[in-house]
Amino acid sequence: MQLLKDRIRKDGKIKSGDVLKVDSFLNHQMDIHMFEEIGREFHKRFADSGVNKILTIEASGIGVACVVAQYFGVPVLFAKKNKTKNIAGDVYTAKVMSFTLGREYDIIVSKEFLGAGDRVLLIDDFLANGKAMEGLVELVKVSGATLVGAGVVIEKGFQPGGAALRGKGIRVESLAIVESMDEATGEITFREETA
Amino acid sequence: MQLLKDRIRKDGKIKSGDVLKVDSFLNHQMDIHMFEEIGREFHKRFADSGVNKILTIEASGIGVACVVAQYFGVPVLFAKKNKTKNIAGDVYTAKVMSFTLGREYDIIVSKEFLGAGDRVLLIDDFLANGKAMEGLVELVKVSGATLVGAGVVIEKGFQPGGAALRGKGIRVESLAIVESMDEATGEITFREETA
Repeated sequence: MQLLKDRIRKDGKIKSGDVLKVDSFLNHQMDIHMFEEIGREFHKRFADSGVNKILTIEASGIGVACVVAQYFGVPVLFAKKNKTKNIAGDVYTAKVMSFTLGREYDIIVSKEFLGAGDRVLLIDDFLANGKAMEGLVELVKVSGATLVGAGVVIEKGFQPGGAALRGKGIRVESLAIVESMDEATGEITFREETA
Repeated sequence: MQLLKDRIRKDGKIKSGDVLKVDSFLNHQMDIHMFEEIGREFHKRFADSGVNKILTIEASGIGVACVVAQYFGVPVLFAKKNKTKNIAGDVYTAKVMSFTLGREYDIIVSKEFLGAGDRVLLIDDFLANGKAMEGLVELVKVSGATLVGAGVVIEKGFQPGGAALRGKGIRVESLAIVESMDEATGEITFREETA
């Protein structure tokens, strides 16, 4: 998605440790007009998939998921990062390994809102190591719902998440795949789109 | 907002400890069509206020804030609950007392995205004790921005947050104010609208 790549080149900041800071428009301050274009694009790509629910994860996935959902006319469900030990029996749970936190945490959704008959599109702002996305895939699986695919705004193509998910046969549509980035020069190279 | 009150009566679940569970449409699963009506209503109420930025707080405020923002055509900024001790100098910070957690936590926004010249509308899904909202008010104040008001989806009128904010002269528009609710009968009474 050219508009997004142009915006990443213009406003993205490369920091040490492979960090791409896009908090001026994606995951702190959020450019709603850009989100509308993102929603239009994901809908174009997944229009024929019979999506009836969008699943994302708190916090920064929620905003873009809600705008995307308007183009599909479906509800959004967000997985919560569980902070307490005592989980009620009425939730599906998956474990996510966080490299940032250096430990595992649980993500949960209510059983009431996900199950057989649902056709689920996963939406998230970032895909890097893919552990959060794998957790969402697991939640869909244990619920008995059908996974239609995953829509990602920015994928770090040099980290293993995207390849791992695609290797499992999951359709991953990333609107911008960063192939490499150079902190010294500020240069960002995107993967060529095949479509 | 009648549509919202009807929905709360239909799908809201009253739990012990003054808990009103609306996770089927507001803060876990999110009904995007309802959010659009909410956005239309807030825009009607704040149309002449010159809002150029919406500020909310993670996590459950983000979705509704993003849909509301589409009616204003402005970006959304969400305050982050700070999990780390080391805060960089480039953020505004406010303290929030959490009754649920039984302790204070910090919320932060980047200085880059909030400042003099901004006219800020606060949006959140719930207003009860009002501590999170007070934190957002504080962030606006220290940034030098102008606070236009606060838009709340559901206010618990029997808890002190709304009265405290209005007592400070802040314009608070709540789309449904729960005056009382009865766990035994399931009955919910809403405050009469003055408009």
